[in-house]
Amino acid sequence: MLEYAHEELTPEEIEAEEALYTPLADAVRDLVDATIRTTVDPDEVRAVQAEVEGLAARLRSSQMEGSFGVRLTDHGSVRNHGNAVVGTRNAVAPPLHMERSGEGRAWADFHLGAAYEGPPGLVHGGVTALILDQVCGEAAAAGGAPGMTGTLTMRYRRGTPLGDLHAEAWIERREGRKTIVHGALSDAEGTTVECEGLFILPRWAVELMEQASGEGPHLFE
Amino acid sequence: MLEYAHEELTPEEIEAEEALYTPLADAVRDLVDATIRTTVDPDEVRAVQAEVEGLAARLRSSQMEGSFGVRLTDHGSVRNHGNAVVGTRNAVAPPLHMERSGEGRAWADFHLGAAYEGPPGLVHGGVTALILDQVCGEAAAAGGAPGMTGTLTMRYRRGTPLGDLHAEAWIERREGRKTIVHGALSDAEGTTVECEGLFILPRWAVELMEQASGEGPHLFE
Repeated sequence: MLEYAHEELTPEEIEAEEALYTPLADAVRDLVDATIRTTVDPDEVRAVQAEVEGLAARLRSSQMEGSFGVRLTDHGSVRNHGNAVVGTRNAVAPPLHMERSGEGRAWADFHLGAAYEGPPGLVHGGVTALILDQVCGEAAAAGGAPGMTGTLTMRYRRGTPLGDLHAEAWIERREGRKTIVHGALSDAEGTTVECEGLFILPRWAVELMEQASGEGPHLFE
Repeated sequence: MLEYAHEELTPEEIEAEEALYTPLADAVRDLVDATIRTTVDPDEVRAVQAEVEGLAARLRSSQMEGSFGVRLTDHGSVRNHGNAVVGTRNAVAPPLHMERSGEGRAWADFHLGAAYEGPPGLVHGGVTALILDQVCGEAAAAGGAPGMTGTLTMRYRRGTPLGDLHAEAWIERREGRKTIVHGALSDAEGTTVECEGLFILPRWAVELMEQASGEGPHLFE
C-alpha cells in the first residue's frame, strides 16, 4: 500500500505555506519558459546558469528527504503540492486548478505554453494524456469513487494548439470497485482529444478511507 | 499542416548551442526539484523567489516569439529542443536521451525525481503516458513509419516507483499509413506499465518527407 504522511498543521498554517511557496513555483515556471525561449548572448546564458545553480543550493541548504509525497492532516485536508499536474510547488505542473462537482465531474481551465510543446505549435500528445489522466482521476474521486488508474485510452481527434484549454471528465459508470470515466480536452474550436479511464480502488484503500473519515476521494491525486 | 522552421546552422553551430543551453536547463531542472523539497525559512524563500524573477527577466531581455517549435536544417538535422519529453532546453522534460534501431525500436534509461510524482513515492500515471507516447512515436519513426498519435492505450500493472527507469517501444505491425507500436515502462523488478499506440502519417507529411529528403522520421517528436 501507499505511504501517506500525517502532519499536524492548522488550516491557517496550510494557507500560509501555500502563500509562501506558490509565488516561488510560479517564478520557476516562468524561468522554465524563459530558458526555452531566450536568445541572449552566450556569456549572459552562462552567467544566469551560475546564478540558478546558486539559488538551488540555497534552497537545498535545508530540504526534505525524497519527494513531497501526499500528506493528510488531522483536520481532514490533503496536500499534494508536489503533484506533476496540480502541485502548486511543482514547476513541471501547469498547474491545473481543478473544480469538481459531487456527482462525479471535474474540470479545469488552463494555459499551456512553450514548455508543453510536441509537434511545432501543438501540445505534446503525451502532455494531453498527463492532464486527462489527472482530470479523470479527480472526476472519479469527486463522485466518491477514487482509484488508481487501471487503463487509460486516448483518442486524438486533431492537434491541440498551445494556448488556452479546457479539460473535463465525468463518471460514465461504476462496477463495484471499478469506475469508468470519460474525459475530453478542448480549445475554443471544440474537442481535440477524448479519453476513457478505468480507475480501481485497491482493497487496502477501502480500509484507509474509513480511517481517514471520508478523505478517500483525494488519496490518489 | 504543421509549420517547421528552417534554419541555416552548421553541425558545429548546433553543437555549440547544445553545449550552451543544456547546462542552463539542467540547472533549472535542479531548481524545480529544490523548489518542491526546500524547507528553508520563509524570508529565504521570498529572497530566492525575487532572484529567480530577476533571472527570468534577464533571459527574456532577448527571446523568440512563442514556442521553440521544430527546426529543420539544410544539413538534414532536426532540432526539437523545446520538446516536453526530450527537449534539452526544456526543464519540464526529464529529458529522455533516446536510442533507436533501424528496425523500429526505441528505448531510453532515465531517472524520475520528485517533480514527476503522483501518488506518494510513485510516478504520476499521466507522466508514464507522457513518456511512453514519446518512446512509441520514436519507435515508429525509427522504423521509417513516423506519424501523429491516433490512439494511445495504457495498461497499468502496478505503481511505478520514482527513481531509475527504462522505457522501450517497438513496431508491432504496419497497415499503410498506420503503424501500431507496443511499449513498456519498467523498473529493476520488471514491467510496471504497458501501452499500445497507433500512429498515423498525415497525407501532407508524405509530401514534406519527400521534400526533406528522408527526414520524415523526426517530424513529429
